Amino acid sequence: MVESVRSRLLAATKANGSLCAGIDPSASMLERWGLPDTASGATEFSIRCVEAFAGHAVAVKPNAAFFEQYGSAGMAGLESVLAAATELGLLTVGDAKRGDIPSTNAAYARAWLDSASTFAVDVLTISPYLGARALTPFFDVAEEHGRGVFVVVRSSNPEGRAVQLTRADDGRTLEEELMDEVSARPEVVGAVIGLMAGVAPLALEKDSFYLAPGLWTQDASLDDLSAQFGGMAPTPVLVNLSRALAVAGPDPDALRDAAIRARMEIDARLCAAPG
Amino acid sequence: MVESVRSRLLAATKANGSLCAGIDPSASMLERWGLPDTASGATEFSIRCVEAFAGHAVAVKPNAAFFEQYGSAGMAGLESVLAAATELGLLTVGDAKRGDIPSTNAAYARAWLDSASTFAVDVLTISPYLGARALTPFFDVAEEHGRGVFVVVRSSNPEGRAVQLTRADDGRTLEEELMDEVSARPEVVGAVIGLMAGVAPLALEKDSFYLAPGLWTQDASLDDLSAQFGGMAPTPVLVNLSRALAVAGPDPDALRDAAIRARMEIDARLCAAPG
Repeated sequence: MVESVRSRLLAATKANGSLCAGIDPSASMLERWGLPDTASGATEFSIRCVEAFAGHAVAVKPNAAFFEQYGSAGMAGLESVLAAATELGLLTVGDAKRGDIPSTNAAYARAWLDSASTFAVDVLTISPYLGARALTPFFDVAEEHGRGVFVVVRSSNPEGRAVQLTRADDGRTLEEELMDEVSARPEVVGAVIGLMAGVAPLALEKDSFYLAPGLWTQDASLDDLSAQFGGMAPTPVLVNLSRALAVAGPDPDALRDAAIRARMEIDARLCAAPG
Repeated sequence: MVESVRSRLLAATKANGSLCAGIDPSASMLERWGLPDTASGATEFSIRCVEAFAGHAVAVKPNAAFFEQYGSAGMAGLESVLAAATELGLLTVGDAKRGDIPSTNAAYARAWLDSASTFAVDVLTISPYLGARALTPFFDVAEEHGRGVFVVVRSSNPEGRAVQLTRADDGRTLEEELMDEVSARPEVVGAVIGLMAGVAPLALEKDSFYLAPGLWTQDASLDDLSAQFGGMAPTPVLVNLSRALAVAGPDPDALRDAAIRARMEIDARLCAAPG
């Protein structure tokens, strides 16, 4: 039987900490790095990130949109970035927010979670607007291949509140309802829980695993990280930083140092009691 | 100033009716057609569909998942399918259900709605779980390029009800709330309104435009189409059929005849009063 993704995440975060390095080759960041606004520029940016972060982050999280913006050539670049990350011992989180009706989800699951696919990632972000129960094909393919998904339950942007705080007939908010749905398969299904300043923590399950975007964006601070995830260890929590690392610029030492500093701050907060 | 997508859809549906031919090269359909379960098989399937449906459907709707499952090679196939459809005078609907935070949505919008992109489509489906107001970058890029989006408001699968019928504090359902949000820019922003048997019609705006999936799946019938969209003409409503056409098999005459028969039935229902 294949090892579950949660088990792999437990071992990896114990060994390498909780920093997840987002890879977002936006046109503005490429310009800042002196790289062309093309598929090859985006690939070059991403490979440099992967090489700098290996050994200091537990995972990299390339954002599909910033590769897709360069067409199929950009998506071919993503394939080489995923291969390089895996080669260097980094876990891969595919940030794609895919989600559709079940028959279509089966095809997206094959794209991102079948080990035979060139886009295969360790964990994929998926979006539940078409219903948590429509996501079953993702769960099934992930389980078969020892991979997993992060269902977007709470996003890190303020615009998401209008949707995620609507209520079911039983009075629970949509995000509470989704947490219950996704908790049924904790070895395979984790959740995206975004950090936002001034938003109350969501009740979480210790036997699941989480992706936490939003730190140092929209005013979310290390205190917000502590409030939501403090004391959850050893539950795997991947804390994402994208722009906060990339602004260090293209110098490999500067990038690596930014990752090392961030990792120390993050890991300290996750080990301490909530506060 | 560039012509709005709604204006283009009005002219196109007046000339060519309301049938939108979905292109879903699933592994099972490729096998049925005797084509290989590869990027080239999916592309061959799709080009044959485009050639058979030109002149009989108003648009084709390739589903990104069924190309993405073959990696970047599949996505390169999608590029050639979009080019062939445009060459033959078909409008293109990109069924990708993309949706994320605003900065990421700007990159997805560039991928799918910027005329310089190889993935550029006339209308893109997008998903609102991260908030309707996070979708503004899609609306802006679409408007600039004379393209548009269909926001998924009501999906055609029963699993979606658990999310889409949650309620805001003012008592409106999430789908009602989203309809109000997306109605603010009717020249650029339309909605996906799925058809389901036994589900009450949603109140719609005549000055917008719609994509209606689900006919002849999940028991949704022409009567359900009439109940939701009857008498809406000339409001553009693209009624999608995917599997119902593809099961006619690879013979071009059989495919074309399936499209012609479906178009007649659909157009008759849209012109008649709701029933």
